[in-house]
Amino acid sequence: MSYNLLKGKRGIIFGALDENSIAWKTAERIHEEGGTFVLTNAPIAMRMGKIKDLAEKTGSEIIPADATKVEDLEALVDGAMEKLGGKLDFVLHSIGMSVNVRKGNHYTDMNYDYTTKGWDVSAVSFHKTMQSLYKKDAMNEWGSIVALTYMAAQRVFPDYNDMADNKAYLESIARSFGYFFGKDKKVRVNTISQSPTPTTAGQGVKGFDGFIAYADKMSPLGNATALDCANYTVSLFSDLTKRVTLQNLFHDGGFSNMGVSQAVMETFMDE
Amino acid sequence: MSYNLLKGKRGIIFGALDENSIAWKTAERIHEEGGTFVLTNAPIAMRMGKIKDLAEKTGSEIIPADATKVEDLEALVDGAMEKLGGKLDFVLHSIGMSVNVRKGNHYTDMNYDYTTKGWDVSAVSFHKTMQSLYKKDAMNEWGSIVALTYMAAQRVFPDYNDMADNKAYLESIARSFGYFFGKDKKVRVNTISQSPTPTTAGQGVKGFDGFIAYADKMSPLGNATALDCANYTVSLFSDLTKRVTLQNLFHDGGFSNMGVSQAVMETFMDE
Amino acid sequence: MSYNLLKGKRGIIFGALDENSIAWKTAERIHEEGGTFVLTNAPIAMRMGKIKDLAEKTGSEIIPADATKVEDLEALVDGAMEKLGGKLDFVLHSIGMSVNVRKGNHYTDMNYDYTTKGWDVSAVSFHKTMQSLYKKDAMNEWGSIVALTYMAAQRVFPDYNDMADNKAYLESIARSFGYFFGKDKKVRVNTISQSPTPTTAGQGVKGFDGFIAYADKMSPLGNATALDCANYTVSLFSDLTKRVTLQNLFHDGGFSNMGVSQAVMETFMDE
Amino acid sequence: MSYNLLKGKRGIIFGALDENSIAWKTAERIHEEGGTFVLTNAPIAMRMGKIKDLAEKTGSEIIPADATKVEDLEALVDGAMEKLGGKLDFVLHSIGMSVNVRKGNHYTDMNYDYTTKGWDVSAVSFHKTMQSLYKKDAMNEWGSIVALTYMAAQRVFPDYNDMADNKAYLESIARSFGYFFGKDKKVRVNTISQSPTPTTAGQGVKGFDGFIAYADKMSPLGNATALDCANYTVSLFSDLTKRVTLQNLFHDGGFSNMGVSQAVMETFMDE
Repeated sequence: MSYNLLKGKRGIIFGALDENSIAWKTAERIHEEGGTFVLTNAPIAMRMGKIKDLAEKTGSEIIPADATKVEDLEALVDGAMEKLGGKLDFVLHSIGMSVNVRKGNHYTDMNYDYTTKGWDVSAVSFHKTMQSLYKKDAMNEWGSIVALTYMAAQRVFPDYNDMADNKAYLESIARSFGYFFGKDKKVRVNTISQSPTPTTAGQGVKGFDGFIAYADKMSPLGNATALDCANYTVSLFSDLTKRVTLQNLFHDGGFSNMGVSQAVMETFMDE
Repeated sequence: MSYNLLKGKRGIIFGALDENSIAWKTAERIHEEGGTFVLTNAPIAMRMGKIKDLAEKTGSEIIPADATKVEDLEALVDGAMEKLGGKLDFVLHSIGMSVNVRKGNHYTDMNYDYTTKGWDVSAVSFHKTMQSLYKKDAMNEWGSIVALTYMAAQRVFPDYNDMADNKAYLESIARSFGYFFGKDKKVRVNTISQSPTPTTAGQGVKGFDGFIAYADKMSPLGNATALDCANYTVSLFSDLTKRVTLQNLFHDGGFSNMGVSQAVMETFMDE
Repeated sequence: MSYNLLKGKRGIIFGALDENSIAWKTAERIHEEGGTFVLTNAPIAMRMGKIKDLAEKTGSEIIPADATKVEDLEALVDGAMEKLGGKLDFVLHSIGMSVNVRKGNHYTDMNYDYTTKGWDVSAVSFHKTMQSLYKKDAMNEWGSIVALTYMAAQRVFPDYNDMADNKAYLESIARSFGYFFGKDKKVRVNTISQSPTPTTAGQGVKGFDGFIAYADKMSPLGNATALDCANYTVSLFSDLTKRVTLQNLFHDGGFSNMGVSQAVMETFMDE
Repeated sequence: MSYNLLKGKRGIIFGALDENSIAWKTAERIHEEGGTFVLTNAPIAMRMGKIKDLAEKTGSEIIPADATKVEDLEALVDGAMEKLGGKLDFVLHSIGMSVNVRKGNHYTDMNYDYTTKGWDVSAVSFHKTMQSLYKKDAMNEWGSIVALTYMAAQRVFPDYNDMADNKAYLESIARSFGYFFGKDKKVRVNTISQSPTPTTAGQGVKGFDGFIAYADKMSPLGNATALDCANYTVSLFSDLTKRVTLQNLFHDGGFSNMGVSQAVMETFMDE
């Protein structure tokens, strides 16, 4: 589908790794809707990914940036405005990584150097991105900034480990910076709290498939897919949602407001 | 603007009284986006309103219905499907009225007959509407039902009186019925929690202008207007938001997540 | 245990039916802590219950009252002050009943007369009680009013039916009336959102035992018992919690902030 | 007042600086209630504070610890168990500091080294403390851990700067670690979200007095004082609240659930 919802809008998309990525699907949908953008990723992630295919497909350029480095982000913002021919209308932050999870450290047995690294990559990078955009006055009025998050920021999912805390910090940044970005620049800032999604990044997490099945059974409309999330992000980048800001928006087939579903209770009782 | 977002979609719009109504603006925007609909209102409200102008302008028909009467709602649902030529894709519930407010009864000195009447009109009408739609299997898959609400359901606004409790009940209905409508019919149900809006209905409330100014100063993007709300509703009726359900969505320029703004603190300190 | 936490405090306890009731346990604990009170229940519930045993055991008197009738509640408030020898310090509202549940009506096939009756008994009774207390200036400063509720007010538990909506309304009353009771009389008003508890009233609900087991497996500290709830209520009636007001307090072994527990995931995966 | 609520209970209290500190008042109240404890603070804070007076008054010992250093915390936990003669029943975490605030850096112009330092002191210290307690199996069953927080974790208070994000992270740790501490050790973990309190630490913050007046006018019961908070903490350390866990408990005279108060609207309108 295409409605020309983003015609003439310019932006930056972080975190497109491969065709399973939410950011990848979002880039495709934004392209279909008439938006233009720069793709970015960490240099190391780019080597592993297929981001060049996506750039070709969508006629976009790639500017590598380590999202923990302010100087990289500033160069990215400058480069994006230059390549796209003006100030920006949208930014998608889709970055997250826990070293403790990768190394198999339990939440009660953390290595705090890893904790700091994961927090910097997953959460502070969002502040650094917005601070770069804000200082350079790089966003057009009524622009829209979205970061992807997960409900572990509100409720306990034991295997999510320190990513839960990182997402809580990320969502707080959205509110805190969103206030100043709204008041000073008329830019909205929101987070989308997405269903568990079978991306390549998620595939390493223990028991992730079972958890996806559980979430699907709990959600009256089933889990939201990566493509659903791309569509929702398009709506948040469009002019239809101009006054939505500081919000954490659950996009999860209803999971977030379920206590228990009949389907889950039946499975539970069968046992 | 027009994107053809609702092309081919059919629905029912409750509560368009005059051109200040959110429902009126929403009807206009849905029409621009290619949707077709039946307008409805209580027989008594219709006499006072200009709904015929809206019907003409949007090429739609009017079916009066008292939203507290199940038989009226069932006739409305049947009539809408017949006139529009098929099952429905969207419904907007924009109904609210407190007899205690109208009669000037303080929240601590309620007349409980009035309380019951206001609850029936403002909240139970939403259940009755959905029960009629559900029983008649009147919604297409991936249809979308939206009711308008206000943040008094979560936080105290002293002059909002028993409408606060009615809105809390309304939002609970959205979740409770949304579960069954999602699971059984793949229909989403959400509420939009809108900024205070200078509609004709709101003009009677004591100190409403002052409160609108306060809310505007508190909100980093300012109050959302009726037209903004119409646009947001369009996004929720579109195929871009298919997996959003059971949510109460704040559409308020950021008010809901503010503790205090600099603008409000400055006014407060000047005193 | 006994700490003399409520020495010299007077109050009213609604809803003690038999020794499984939370209100029953609370009455016992308040008695141990030195508080005095009047017991009340609907005339019909009293016939079925053993409330006289409790009255004897705790040296308290019984004043029957239909909590939907303002005149009964006013007589109760007057009677309690007279019998106890002064203004009141605490009130426990523990009343709830859905006629739709009793009659086996599904949430999507409600009888609205039953809906109205259940709403009046379960939710409006709390407003009527507080309005009687407020008008008669029957509460001492720093008094404490508590109503029992359930998390279905926030999240979907399909079998909870219209009690979910009633509890949402009840919790809203706590906030709305709590504002005026706090500001005008320095009285706090809160709700306790309790784990599912195997009371006699709950025993009729379909699949309730299975649900209790599920909630227990989801909660890191297990379900809160009726005695736990009595203890928590004592803390809220004591002078230790004077500035806690307008809150909905989850008392549930942690359930409310769980996304999923390892114990539930294991059961789910075994299937 | 004294009820012997904490007789025989042992614990650790972080953050008592001087008699204005919430931790100081809490130590006094715990002492009155029969609890014994070790006081701790950062070596640098201890030089500035009067913690020795408190230690004398309450018959407790002091073990200095830098709460960002795991080895200090492990020595503290060992030392406390040794000095108190057994495993612990309660821990109060009352630590917070933003270098960005101290240095006058605006939220949109952060120094990220300062951000990291403030996050480590204010938030990660809570994880490090719990990880030390958990690994050493230092808590008795039904023990209680409380950290102090502020509502800026949920809503925007512009001058609160990066402390908002730190508090969001802290509250997430309470949930994440609270799950494992509850499941594995039957220990509850909660945060108290306290009214703005005129402590010595708060006195440096710009416009803090005006903000305290605003919060007081917004809250139906007025701001909660440091002594109120001490009493509330006592209730959370007592056996009356055994099944309360993973909660963020607002202790604020009702502020958190206010949209606007009449007193604030009047001030606003006078202008």
